[in-house]
Amino acid sequence: MNTLFRGIRVLMPDFTVAETDVYVAGDAIAALGQAPEGFTADTVVEGKNRLLLPGFVNAHTHVYMSMFRGCADDLPFADWLMGHIDPLEARMTREDCYWASQLGYLEMLSTGTTCSLDMYVFTESAVRAAQESGVRAALCRGLTGPEDGERRIREATEEIRAWRGKEDRLRFFLGPHAPYTCSEAYLRQVAELSEELGLSMNIHISESLFEQETIRSRYGCTPSEYLDRAGILKPGTVAAHCVYLSDTDIALLAQRQVSVVTNPVSNMKLGNGVAPIPKLLQAGVNLALGTDGAASNNALNLFRDLSLLTLLHKGLGGDPTLVTAREGLRMATVGGAKALGLEGTVGIIAPGYQADLTVLDLDKPWLRPWCDIPSSLAYAANGSEVESVMVAGRFLMKDGEFLTIDRERVLFEVDRTCRRLGILK
Amino acid sequence: MNTLFRGIRVLMPDFTVAETDVYVAGDAIAALGQAPEGFTADTVVEGKNRLLLPGFVNAHTHVYMSMFRGCADDLPFADWLMGHIDPLEARMTREDCYWASQLGYLEMLSTGTTCSLDMYVFTESAVRAAQESGVRAALCRGLTGPEDGERRIREATEEIRAWRGKEDRLRFFLGPHAPYTCSEAYLRQVAELSEELGLSMNIHISESLFEQETIRSRYGCTPSEYLDRAGILKPGTVAAHCVYLSDTDIALLAQRQVSVVTNPVSNMKLGNGVAPIPKLLQAGVNLALGTDGAASNNALNLFRDLSLLTLLHKGLGGDPTLVTAREGLRMATVGGAKALGLEGTVGIIAPGYQADLTVLDLDKPWLRPWCDIPSSLAYAANGSEVESVMVAGRFLMKDGEFLTIDRERVLFEVDRTCRRLGILK
Repeated sequence: MNTLFRGIRVLMPDFTVAETDVYVAGDAIAALGQAPEGFTADTVVEGKNRLLLPGFVNAHTHVYMSMFRGCADDLPFADWLMGHIDPLEARMTREDCYWASQLGYLEMLSTGTTCSLDMYVFTESAVRAAQESGVRAALCRGLTGPEDGERRIREATEEIRAWRGKEDRLRFFLGPHAPYTCSEAYLRQVAELSEELGLSMNIHISESLFEQETIRSRYGCTPSEYLDRAGILKPGTVAAHCVYLSDTDIALLAQRQVSVVTNPVSNMKLGNGVAPIPKLLQAGVNLALGTDGAASNNALNLFRDLSLLTLLHKGLGGDPTLVTAREGLRMATVGGAKALGLEGTVGIIAPGYQADLTVLDLDKPWLRPWCDIPSSLAYAANGSEVESVMVAGRFLMKDGEFLTIDRERVLFEVDRTCRRLGILK
Repeated sequence: MNTLFRGIRVLMPDFTVAETDVYVAGDAIAALGQAPEGFTADTVVEGKNRLLLPGFVNAHTHVYMSMFRGCADDLPFADWLMGHIDPLEARMTREDCYWASQLGYLEMLSTGTTCSLDMYVFTESAVRAAQESGVRAALCRGLTGPEDGERRIREATEEIRAWRGKEDRLRFFLGPHAPYTCSEAYLRQVAELSEELGLSMNIHISESLFEQETIRSRYGCTPSEYLDRAGILKPGTVAAHCVYLSDTDIALLAQRQVSVVTNPVSNMKLGNGVAPIPKLLQAGVNLALGTDGAASNNALNLFRDLSLLTLLHKGLGGDPTLVTAREGLRMATVGGAKALGLEGTVGIIAPGYQADLTVLDLDKPWLRPWCDIPSSLAYAANGSEVESVMVAGRFLMKDGEFLTIDRERVLFEVDRTCRRLGILK
């Protein structure tokens, strides 16, 4: 399947916008401007008043949590987590998680996200949802221990061995959950397994003051220092949240070449605060953007996080030049790709890259005039401008229609599950 | 023209959601649940999986600034204002402002705003755009002085006398611009005129640290104290921004029964900071929500401000119960209506109220499941769920189509104007 995007504005790797033709051959971008020899288009997308974006990378989420959207808002944190989310999660079946994940992919595709890093509960549900929807995904099962930890590691290892390499678009991480849910010995065990299997790790770090205080009182250090001691911080590791970081922590993360994923909407909504993005940028840490799960976001729309990210630091730092639209866009694209180990594969529109692409309608009134399109993506767009989305050269959504997910069925099954779980009456 | 919304979910005045029939007769809501005697519907809207909202009130904006969207982002404040916005504004004609205003109304209608308070430059352009688009609006010309101030007051008075009362949906305010652009004598003159004409006043207060310092050095007090001395703070006065308020200022605004309009996106984007909303709520000040102009927002989509408003205070206050979804919705509806002197007229879906209504599509994946619809409006919606919008019983947008504004023409004229002004190349 070859696709020609004809005369379309393109967000270029340097975050300028150029009008050109984009040729997609099979799963990859073949050329810009000039047709490759012998190219014949099976599909032509007319680019008039349209923008072609690299698909966004949602570098930290829990896709199955889409089912918990709005079930416990405006509540104190402990009540939210222990009173509502944890008990619900404990009752979810594999099937529930599958449908909830499809709901999440419906939303992500609708709003231009083509790739995500999903920390899930059931491997089978997560793999099946990602496979059938056609998205690109990095997947990891949340691991906690020592309590019941051996079983989790054993199962995760078996599952990864069974699934790994069966699908180009899917890759696996190991997911030690967080400093406060994993003992040092357990973390060390996961870190050793990551070497053995050649897999990177994904972990939550310094999300809340509760975590800071817990780790300080248990181990007399910061969560980053604790994780470093256990061998978790190394190139390829993806650290989500990172709200509370000392300057020493930031230097440590930079030195260890850890990628940091910021989740501004979730951090604000749960009352956790604001990650030190300007300092992390200055330290040269690779930064990516994530929504977290819909229990705390409550959307999986990366445009909302991009907007909040770029606004927060300006307002709090008293400086409108902090965290620019382009810096935000870099995090939502190449920064995310690098975090997921997909640098050189996705995140940029250039020949040889995978054709993970989003078409936006630039005729929305709120995107006019087109003075500065990258800026409008951060400060005016809301995600609803997305018309079509392609992953690896295959349209998953075209002109607003989903081609791989049965939208009606997903909404029906989610509704039915929510009634069974007592989330909906 | 009578309209029946059949079997539709309705956001009720207490911010619960009920499923019922809503009967609109002429320009007003006639009944809920039971048809009024002799009612015949000219139009029936099937309410399955739809939500009926009171139209949002954007209580502080500069609609004509839509033309400046994205023309000077990520720049220091002084460069933004003096280097870009002011020189552009000085070159705008009446015709330019008319088309820019129509662009703004296209966006506001698209995203469920039916009513706004617009501080403009040219009365004729503002009135014509509001009149033709069919929106409800409170309008005021920005007044500064003493320099050239007499002329502005004289012209504004003449224009208001000429236009006032010609259109039910339009009302006028007097718009003394800000403490730092109006002398005390000038402010006093405007306050006296407001008594004489029976008009409320709309002013910017304490938007920036620059303003705080300027007023402190000139008058030895806060902007609120200065304005109170000049007779500006009284019931009916609408104060925009109010980022920097002392506890004494808050008590003063409460005592004088001033409405405060918060503009979180604009305040963050310009690096001005965060208004003390939790304290204002506690003091019982009437609060409304505004986008400000698109030069600093960069959208006129109140859903974005609602989202940011409800997230900001949770995150900064370390408390997820601060500024709830329902408190935010109150500000975007009844709070705004009260600010604009329209309490009892709009902002609530109840018999006798004007039929200013928005229909949302609840089948968007990011609004499912429907655990808590009001919560989803703040934390998951992005404004694109709006299908149809009605003002005073008349559809201005139906199923995504604009019925009063020629969308293509507006985009064309805005483009042409931007090229002439050198905003677009």
